[in-house]
Amino acid sequence: MDTKSRQFNLAIVGLGGMGNWHRETIERIDNLQVCGSFDIKPARQQFAKDHGLVPYESFEAVLADPKVDIVLCATPNDVHREIVVRSLQAGKHVVCEKPVTLSSADLQAMIDASKQADRLFVVHQNRRWDEDFLTMKKVFDEGLLGEVFRIESRVHGSRGIPGDWRQEKRHGGGMILDWGVHTLDQMLLLVPGKVKKVYASVTHVTNELVDDGFCAELTFESGLRALLEVGTSNFVSLPRWYMLGRDGTAVIHDWSLKGEMVRITDWSKNDAVPIRTAAGLTKTMAPRTKDTIHTEPLPVVKSDIRDFYRNVMATIEGKAEIVVKLDQVMRVMKLMEAIFASAERQQVVDFE
Amino acid sequence: MDTKSRQFNLAIVGLGGMGNWHRETIERIDNLQVCGSFDIKPARQQFAKDHGLVPYESFEAVLADPKVDIVLCATPNDVHREIVVRSLQAGKHVVCEKPVTLSSADLQAMIDASKQADRLFVVHQNRRWDEDFLTMKKVFDEGLLGEVFRIESRVHGSRGIPGDWRQEKRHGGGMILDWGVHTLDQMLLLVPGKVKKVYASVTHVTNELVDDGFCAELTFESGLRALLEVGTSNFVSLPRWYMLGRDGTAVIHDWSLKGEMVRITDWSKNDAVPIRTAAGLTKTMAPRTKDTIHTEPLPVVKSDIRDFYRNVMATIEGKAEIVVKLDQVMRVMKLMEAIFASAERQQVVDFE
Repeated sequence: MDTKSRQFNLAIVGLGGMGNWHRETIERIDNLQVCGSFDIKPARQQFAKDHGLVPYESFEAVLADPKVDIVLCATPNDVHREIVVRSLQAGKHVVCEKPVTLSSADLQAMIDASKQADRLFVVHQNRRWDEDFLTMKKVFDEGLLGEVFRIESRVHGSRGIPGDWRQEKRHGGGMILDWGVHTLDQMLLLVPGKVKKVYASVTHVTNELVDDGFCAELTFESGLRALLEVGTSNFVSLPRWYMLGRDGTAVIHDWSLKGEMVRITDWSKNDAVPIRTAAGLTKTMAPRTKDTIHTEPLPVVKSDIRDFYRNVMATIEGKAEIVVKLDQVMRVMKLMEAIFASAERQQVVDFE
Repeated sequence: MDTKSRQFNLAIVGLGGMGNWHRETIERIDNLQVCGSFDIKPARQQFAKDHGLVPYESFEAVLADPKVDIVLCATPNDVHREIVVRSLQAGKHVVCEKPVTLSSADLQAMIDASKQADRLFVVHQNRRWDEDFLTMKKVFDEGLLGEVFRIESRVHGSRGIPGDWRQEKRHGGGMILDWGVHTLDQMLLLVPGKVKKVYASVTHVTNELVDDGFCAELTFESGLRALLEVGTSNFVSLPRWYMLGRDGTAVIHDWSLKGEMVRITDWSKNDAVPIRTAAGLTKTMAPRTKDTIHTEPLPVVKSDIRDFYRNVMATIEGKAEIVVKLDQVMRVMKLMEAIFASAERQQVVDFE
């Protein structure tokens, strides 16, 4: 029996910023190579040539090339469905950028096409490999803070919404679809159980056409509450992660994973010197003294994003189970639809 | 005409932590003196003696003393109503600690008693004089951030709820009544216009009987959203204030007023070097470079809490208008009731 893995050829459809990120990443992955690319923009066809790729002359040419095993769809969001379905029908396996598409009905059609063609269809939820997420997941899974009752996940920028297709509704722009799809996917992996209630609001600070930020509170059946927030007009950022347990708090401030855990060491020592402000005093809100708490570094988890493609190849070969499952992707899509509905109606929406 | 202010005598009913704070503060106020106190606890009667006060032998003795101009009610919240109404009926002016009482119906009865007796009834919303609040109000009023679209006001401690009557529902315990009454009062003074929607949730981390924290989102008719949060199991605190405008962000981290404003200087410079994380890259969330933003100190506002009592005395003398108005106090009370209702029903509540 030959245990050596076979070689996989991948064609990139849509060679923008993310398409090129895939090209660079795949260069560092064994048994996988980019065999070509196609982009509707001539400048990006030239970019392909400049980087040693052979550009296909059309999307149809990609589909017609028998050496293509996997199509990567990295186009604007509104054409994902067509590209994915046609690629599957042409017998290709498909990796699709996130958000997979613009509605759960679209996604169902894509899933159906995948089943019919008996080909792998997987969504590039790459931020499952982000180390800030994996570190908070470890804190949660190992119960390092005691019972967790609240998790806050924020992504704050101050550049407004990008000036490309991401600011147009018909192309699937907006921050719920762009960043919400990551933070929601992470939160649903982090917290077990059903999401019972969703309340959300959106902002239109720099853009009227699509949301340039949102805030969503999820209530899980356990009672745990999760706050998800994305902002693009935040000139001072609040922490990327903030997790509250009965016995401590964990925080990750930024992309560099600067953060800490502060845990209680002695509940019985509860006396406080009141804090005086201009107008009064407070004992309740007096900071704890060092003798009852312990500040510790986070148990940082390292990751290798190349594992995404390694898992894709192993799944195609029947040697592994796919990590990014379609039912998970569907759940996130439906949750985004609930967030849109809640924000529009200004009401709490029942979810699961 | 005698322009010299007359001398006012104030009797303290309830000489706990806050009652004693009043005693100390009044020592530094001209034309006002504490003429005695009453507390149902013998130890606090002794405390009065130890600090040079003559303790009254009963609440009735306070009311019967003609030299008492003003009664300060600083008891647990559930007996405010009785003490305030009886004091007014005895012809005394009344200063009442916050929260003024436990329901808007109670408050209405107290307001009615004040009108009937033609005596001043004022609530000690002392945190209107807190310098963090006054500083953020200046940032807002002077439009230093451009149009403000979101304000977050957080008070985070990690000592659980106090172990005294504040953990009992029948005494009016819980953090909505204890700290919410301040932060809501501040927010309603800060933001003009009606509050249209209220969504709130409460926590019971260290206490089952009363809320030991809450989170409330208010939507104003202008579209501005305000988040109010109080927590008592937060071992790492998020900033006390966070204000987002179209052209900048202001933050106050803690009681010492540590904070800053970051404002945009050049919207046209928008290019970014993408941030790389373990699993991907982002241009949208790349921090701004120094050439397009300006970080500035906050325009710190100083205050003198003694102005509260100076205003009370001037109002009694007909020389000033009362600062803490009863219709404002009633509005906050009704907003707290909306917060309780929203949290219980897990629904958005229409407010004004």
